[in-house]
Amino acid sequence: MKAAVAGASGYAGGELLRLLLGHPAIEIGALTAGASAGSVLGAHQPHLPALADRTLQETTPETLGGHDVVFLALPHGRSAAVAEKLGEGTLVVDCGADFRLADPAAWTAFYGGTHAGTWPYGLPELPGRREVLRGARRIAVPGCYPTSATLALFPAFAAGLAEPDVVVVAASGTSGAGRDPKPHLQGSEVMGSATAYGVGGVHRHTPEMEQNLSQVAGRPVTVSFTPVLAPMSRGILATCTAPAVPGLTAAALREAYAAAVKDEPFVRLLPEGTWPATAMTLGANTAALQVTLDERAGRVVAVIAIDNLTKGTAGGAVQSANLALGLAEELGLPLNGVAP
Amino acid sequence: MKAAVAGASGYAGGELLRLLLGHPAIEIGALTAGASAGSVLGAHQPHLPALADRTLQETTPETLGGHDVVFLALPHGRSAAVAEKLGEGTLVVDCGADFRLADPAAWTAFYGGTHAGTWPYGLPELPGRREVLRGARRIAVPGCYPTSATLALFPAFAAGLAEPDVVVVAASGTSGAGRDPKPHLQGSEVMGSATAYGVGGVHRHTPEMEQNLSQVAGRPVTVSFTPVLAPMSRGILATCTAPAVPGLTAAALREAYAAAVKDEPFVRLLPEGTWPATAMTLGANTAALQVTLDERAGRVVAVIAIDNLTKGTAGGAVQSANLALGLAEELGLPLNGVAP
Amino acid sequence: MKAAVAGASGYAGGELLRLLLGHPAIEIGALTAGASAGSVLGAHQPHLPALADRTLQETTPETLGGHDVVFLALPHGRSAAVAEKLGEGTLVVDCGADFRLADPAAWTAFYGGTHAGTWPYGLPELPGRREVLRGARRIAVPGCYPTSATLALFPAFAAGLAEPDVVVVAASGTSGAGRDPKPHLQGSEVMGSATAYGVGGVHRHTPEMEQNLSQVAGRPVTVSFTPVLAPMSRGILATCTAPAVPGLTAAALREAYAAAVKDEPFVRLLPEGTWPATAMTLGANTAALQVTLDERAGRVVAVIAIDNLTKGTAGGAVQSANLALGLAEELGLPLNGVAP
Amino acid sequence: MKAAVAGASGYAGGELLRLLLGHPAIEIGALTAGASAGSVLGAHQPHLPALADRTLQETTPETLGGHDVVFLALPHGRSAAVAEKLGEGTLVVDCGADFRLADPAAWTAFYGGTHAGTWPYGLPELPGRREVLRGARRIAVPGCYPTSATLALFPAFAAGLAEPDVVVVAASGTSGAGRDPKPHLQGSEVMGSATAYGVGGVHRHTPEMEQNLSQVAGRPVTVSFTPVLAPMSRGILATCTAPAVPGLTAAALREAYAAAVKDEPFVRLLPEGTWPATAMTLGANTAALQVTLDERAGRVVAVIAIDNLTKGTAGGAVQSANLALGLAEELGLPLNGVAP
Repeated sequence: MKAAVAGASGYAGGELLRLLLGHPAIEIGALTAGASAGSVLGAHQPHLPALADRTLQETTPETLGGHDVVFLALPHGRSAAVAEKLGEGTLVVDCGADFRLADPAAWTAFYGGTHAGTWPYGLPELPGRREVLRGARRIAVPGCYPTSATLALFPAFAAGLAEPDVVVVAASGTSGAGRDPKPHLQGSEVMGSATAYGVGGVHRHTPEMEQNLSQVAGRPVTVSFTPVLAPMSRGILATCTAPAVPGLTAAALREAYAAAVKDEPFVRLLPEGTWPATAMTLGANTAALQVTLDERAGRVVAVIAIDNLTKGTAGGAVQSANLALGLAEELGLPLNGVAP
Repeated sequence: MKAAVAGASGYAGGELLRLLLGHPAIEIGALTAGASAGSVLGAHQPHLPALADRTLQETTPETLGGHDVVFLALPHGRSAAVAEKLGEGTLVVDCGADFRLADPAAWTAFYGGTHAGTWPYGLPELPGRREVLRGARRIAVPGCYPTSATLALFPAFAAGLAEPDVVVVAASGTSGAGRDPKPHLQGSEVMGSATAYGVGGVHRHTPEMEQNLSQVAGRPVTVSFTPVLAPMSRGILATCTAPAVPGLTAAALREAYAAAVKDEPFVRLLPEGTWPATAMTLGANTAALQVTLDERAGRVVAVIAIDNLTKGTAGGAVQSANLALGLAEELGLPLNGVAP
Repeated sequence: MKAAVAGASGYAGGELLRLLLGHPAIEIGALTAGASAGSVLGAHQPHLPALADRTLQETTPETLGGHDVVFLALPHGRSAAVAEKLGEGTLVVDCGADFRLADPAAWTAFYGGTHAGTWPYGLPELPGRREVLRGARRIAVPGCYPTSATLALFPAFAAGLAEPDVVVVAASGTSGAGRDPKPHLQGSEVMGSATAYGVGGVHRHTPEMEQNLSQVAGRPVTVSFTPVLAPMSRGILATCTAPAVPGLTAAALREAYAAAVKDEPFVRLLPEGTWPATAMTLGANTAALQVTLDERAGRVVAVIAIDNLTKGTAGGAVQSANLALGLAEELGLPLNGVAP
Repeated sequence: MKAAVAGASGYAGGELLRLLLGHPAIEIGALTAGASAGSVLGAHQPHLPALADRTLQETTPETLGGHDVVFLALPHGRSAAVAEKLGEGTLVVDCGADFRLADPAAWTAFYGGTHAGTWPYGLPELPGRREVLRGARRIAVPGCYPTSATLALFPAFAAGLAEPDVVVVAASGTSGAGRDPKPHLQGSEVMGSATAYGVGGVHRHTPEMEQNLSQVAGRPVTVSFTPVLAPMSRGILATCTAPAVPGLTAAALREAYAAAVKDEPFVRLLPEGTWPATAMTLGANTAALQVTLDERAGRVVAVIAIDNLTKGTAGGAVQSANLALGLAEELGLPLNGVAP
């Protein structure tokens, strides 16, 4: 099968290419870009010598046509126009936000403008999701923060062990903010410093977390979400907490988590006493998860580490694409990370 | 006045010396250490050339005697024995945990063993605290995390604007873990990685946060506290959230915060829309604070940045010592940080 | 005395202000900027709360007039026009490159365009320099790399112990590249990575190093200079090596270095066996220096650490300004750094 | 084929396992360790979930026996005793220094004690080396610094374009110093700081560089080598310079480099104007190389980036093992890195 990558000069695009280069059943076809069209990939992704001499084409229906799967790693708001020109038989996997939310009002409130629609949501670990994804021809890849928070708390809500008043504080590496140069993302500003941003319920990933957890819980879940920019390039470490239901024991909590993830190829409940570090997952499609019951405060506390560019974006995209294309879900996806 | 520093070879000791070198009313007397006694300070604190040739003495009542103020930066459990040999007229400022907690049961639960006692708690910003500290001869310096969380939330609790169900997630630089080499604190392990530890209500700073906030609130406050090790040497960025009381408005919240800190020399409520970064406070005794009301989730969200070694330890110690010694509270304490 | 700072929103400007805030004999007057004029300083230098509410003015002869000293931290090529409008009685200290080089041909070769002129070169440690700087009314502050390389090797050349075929490889923090956002300076690109740039004799600081060392040696010295961008915000660590003259012994080399710097307030020859680290000098005006004789390779190897923004720019500027203004050279300049 | 890894709990061992997990022709057999024997691998290499539950055995002839290839990642001085108990038909690949040097006097001068012997040196890129490695049953893997410096300069010396007076300054990530906790390698010490060490011709990798380059040059080459510890976990960026022979042109130099590496699968001469960054090679077996002629200083300047744990240790080991085992040289070795 043949894949095109639109937005190949960005961070998500680069990670898609890194994974696809190791994918045994997918061949890399067209690489397209916006302003970088016409230059060679090596100028943007010097860590991928295998593709260094490939020229970036314009992102158009023509350049993207004729592929079995098209991965879109475009700025928000661009995917709809591209997707509608691609045939219905082509698998289109959108790493952007355009088709993630089911609720048009939430879209408008958080992103502004008109909702483009809703595509099958590509988080295979959610209950019942694999059935939806198998054979799908449109997939909305989850945001990086929602991937982390959802994987951290879905076992608790699926088992009815937590109250729907969630607090998530997640530290992210800077690559999550993309490649465009911005003053506050300069190395001199971020090294040696941690900073919060998008505080108070305004970050765009908030309604996506609520959507996922509400669906699992079967009732509305609210999330107080605070993202933190940490001085590292990659990785998300999310601390996710919710009130425990009365009578919950630590043993029952752990048992529910173990049961929920035991067949998941990419979610790993760590041995008791070990807490996730983002270094455990660098470059891997693995989520490292741990949970405990804070008996004093009466809260479930789950902590999860993922690589925001792998499991949080490009790896998640390939995982769902594998399902949609009828391939083994794990194909081409590294389980093991690069450390130290 | 003359100050001795016990534990001068460690990180807290080094920061005390850096500050005292710039203090116009305090002269540096004896420098003492444990295993490092006999070596010169330059071997441990090469950033302090002004004291490079000073020899570290043993930590004994004799070496520490004859000073107006003795700063203790010792491992937990060592301060009581040292302090009782020092005269009652000597100001003893303990950067360790031994005398912070009022509740012996909490001490035993979190630290083990027998409670050494309770000294005046050196957080001048707490209501009524300056009166206690003026003229005190024993001071327990707050822990770095409790300093951050207490300063972030005391305005809300003092004004009755938050419910006592607090969640704190705080990212700290590695210097908070001290200088002793440990496998998980090696550079190769911490660079590029964020990791949680002490999760689920077991971190020793938890009861200290609860003690402070309960005292301000006038009723029991529980804290779910998750510390996160971030890839930086210095700084704490704490996200502190609690349910808002019914009817709270963003304007009323901000007004309460502005009123609470308006005369505080070292707590700075940032302009609206600006969120704290630890780089704002590196090497300074300043806390950078911001607060908002998450109306969707119904929570007060306060974020604070401090330098864990300055305001969080050595700066806090000097600030309280200034009060105890009858000096101007700000003396010798940098308001401005080192950035970028 | 009163100082204006032109370019107050940049990194050099911020460091000048940090130092001047602690200077006992200089008061801060006008703060000016280019594109940032009209905004408050707090928006650019949030680590300087003491000046947060000061408004940035345009950089004009009027705003800069009426000060005893004007510090220019402007992009290259802008200083001449500003300086000529300031009275001859005003001390003008230029942190830019415009007036550093004596040789117009070198200027044109490395910077392009016409040479603006030559001002007294502000490196007080160079033999005979203090006499020139006392009472000067124009000062060209050395570049950060030349400061490091010159201080590292001048003792060898002054004593005739090295041959004039120098190799300098210097790792610098990213703040040396200034504040303007650039793709290769984004945090995601620089964290976890070291990269060379300006290799092969093309970096603009090369002729400045040659000028300084040639002057000390009394004969032409060539420098092969390779700058390396290191994943840190501040600091330069320069490895500087030159062939040893025949018969040189390690003892004679060390003796020459010790003699050369023994009265220097800001150059510290470290104890034997200790090698410089940039962390020793963060925020300080101190240079940490070490030297050895590589007997196998027949080379003098000197390694030096400075803070590029302090001793390498703003601290060097204040040090020379102190001399020019008839103040004590050390006034307002931190000897001790901030570590860890 | 089946491989054992001795020293599986360390950094080199972990990287060997990461690569072998992706190797299509080698199966992982015994994992052994010293003090960590008896524990599970997951406690030491949490980034390798695929092997998390494997128990570490003692490093003995029995546990290592019965494998086609045994990789030794042991402390210096331990390999000889282990190797002599393994049959001559077993391929033994030593990542340690014991068998790298041909000159017993150099061994004794730099490592102390008695030279254990000399094994075929596993740097396939050296002229004539592949013939030696094919079918070899003992291989000494080069040190990480010598790998970088040799690859950077062998084209110049092979073509007779450089004089034998080499200066190498190489910045390395901290993982090169191994996993044992040491005070100067703690995160708080290394983050934000660069420091030199082993200066003046005393670093143990110096004679290995000289051995390699002398062999290529056909005459004695001396190397002045300064290692620099940079604030990153992985990667070496080496600046390598030597006097150019008279009359050398930039074009001839580049041509020689292009010719020397054009068939090398893992050495990539970057496009002109692009300089190596360690981030280009993270986790990859690739060396990113660039060269220029500094005409002012009359020197060849080559800069190279490698991942010290991959091409610099474990990747180099697997590359040579592939040759020895009659496999394709590239098998199991990532060409592409993980970035940003």
